[in-house]
Amino acid sequence: MTDAAPGKVYLVGSGPGDPDLLTVKAKRLLEEADVVLHDKLPGPEIIGMIPEEQREDVGKRAGGEWTPQEYTNARLVELAEEGNTVVRLKGGDSMVFGRGGEELAHLAENGIPVEIVPGITSAIAGPEAAGIPVTHRDYTSSVSFVTGHEDPTKDESAVDWDALAATGGTLVVLMGVGKLPQYTDALREAGMDPDTPVALVERATWPDQQVATGTLDTIVSVRDEAGIEPPAITVIGEVAGERERVVEFLEGY
Amino acid sequence: MTDAAPGKVYLVGSGPGDPDLLTVKAKRLLEEADVVLHDKLPGPEIIGMIPEEQREDVGKRAGGEWTPQEYTNARLVELAEEGNTVVRLKGGDSMVFGRGGEELAHLAENGIPVEIVPGITSAIAGPEAAGIPVTHRDYTSSVSFVTGHEDPTKDESAVDWDALAATGGTLVVLMGVGKLPQYTDALREAGMDPDTPVALVERATWPDQQVATGTLDTIVSVRDEAGIEPPAITVIGEVAGERERVVEFLEGY
Ligand SMILES: C[S@@+](CC[C@H](N)C(=O)[O-])C[C@H]1O[C@@H](n2cnc3c(N)ncnc32)[C@H](O)[C@@H]1O
Ligand SMILES: C[S@@+](CC[C@H](N)C(=O)[O-])C[C@H]1O[C@@H](n2cnc3c(N)ncnc32)[C@H](O)[C@@H]1O
Repeated sequence: MTDAAPGKVYLVGSGPGDPDLLTVKAKRLLEEADVVLHDKLPGPEIIGMIPEEQREDVGKRAGGEWTPQEYTNARLVELAEEGNTVVRLKGGDSMVFGRGGEELAHLAENGIPVEIVPGITSAIAGPEAAGIPVTHRDYTSSVSFVTGHEDPTKDESAVDWDALAATGGTLVVLMGVGKLPQYTDALREAGMDPDTPVALVERATWPDQQVATGTLDTIVSVRDEAGIEPPAITVIGEVAGERERVVEFLEGY
Repeated sequence: MTDAAPGKVYLVGSGPGDPDLLTVKAKRLLEEADVVLHDKLPGPEIIGMIPEEQREDVGKRAGGEWTPQEYTNARLVELAEEGNTVVRLKGGDSMVFGRGGEELAHLAENGIPVEIVPGITSAIAGPEAAGIPVTHRDYTSSVSFVTGHEDPTKDESAVDWDALAATGGTLVVLMGVGKLPQYTDALREAGMDPDTPVALVERATWPDQQVATGTLDTIVSVRDEAGIEPPAITVIGEVAGERERVVEFLEGY
């Protein structure tokens, strides 16, 4: 701990990748921050906006290993205690499956002033970039975001696919490319109609965005044929069928 | 239909109300649009940024009646066919309980070029403004947004509170101030722990934001004592308890 006045940490969401979808506040903070800690998810365009001498990559390191969360937590405290204005930049919104909640708690426990700057989550913007509204009065009165990372065949899986199917609402799966076969199976076993529309949106709002559509029954082979890879969003529900109705006149991405 | 080249409609989310949380793109479109159709939800600060001669209020009218959705749909088509660049501005994100999906379909069916510009939804930014992450590795692997507008005691209610409780994830209720007693009852009957933390965030990110916290058991009297009124977000789940851990060092709103 130095004698400097304590700095501050901003937990900032970058949005899905298009720099135009940064908030006004996030853009200003990227220009003004002393240091920006980021990983790869914000995407090359946004990371490229940060002066090189101000950025620190705390994502995957050479050799493919992740920077441990403990290192990032400690580094944020250290930089703030030195008096810096620090931006912790994360893809989408920092509190949606981004471990932002852990960083927030760690900072507060260490007496560091902290502010959350919301970002556009890929869970909403991903579907939208493909012409899909996550809710729709005609079909659904809820939408659930869920991690597809856990293996649904494991007993200790924290995700209850039966309950999610029973909500009758839209399901948006993040980190759900690899285990797509497992959780689409789980949803069918839970009684979800195998003809339910499903869409995959890879690198939403990036210049190389890809969209692929099918049904609960066909989406695994659709994924394989289209070569969909992470990062991608899976949208499951009647709303996914709206893309077809609007795509001819849809502009943007 | 005139001879003018067809215009275009942007379905734009304004975010929760703080103008700093507009996206860079939304801010630019508000400056450049020929016409902006809006209701009251974007809030006075953002609406005040739009030159008066460019805005049309399609929200509540004098006398308290709502502009029918059919009028708004038809007006958007009309203005675009006259060659205008039209912004349809909605609070939060336009596809989260905002009837944006209906406008999108209507425009595409009428051959109008349409683009969705995502906004920061109050369902995520509302909790965050109170220091609450909607997901957290220690507590939850899903978050569901649901409308609190429907009466859960009615048979035809489209919201399945049993299923939502069974997900074990965070629940974020929009339009849920009035029916708070009904759906907290429904969740207790569904077996949710009566001590589950609950937070109410009114006018999140507005200068007069209010936060009130309690449990599933106490939140109705908390609401009444604090005088919480719409628009407000209800967050239900262990994450709502995080506020207490961080609020001392939380800056922003
Ligand atoms: C660790 S989670 C972080 C989510 C992020 N906090 C957000 O709000 O978007 C990473 C997952 O987000 C999703 N994701 C993030 N950016 C994306 C993009 N531009 N297009 C598609 N999916 C994206 C993918 O599902 C990816 O596996
Ligand atoms: C018709 S819904 C529209 C939601 C909006 N599309 C969004 O994404 O935030 C209206 C509800 O949004 C919520 N809401 C919108 N803005 C809010 C704010 N600034 N603070 C708290 N709640 C808000 C309230 O629950 C309100 O009843």
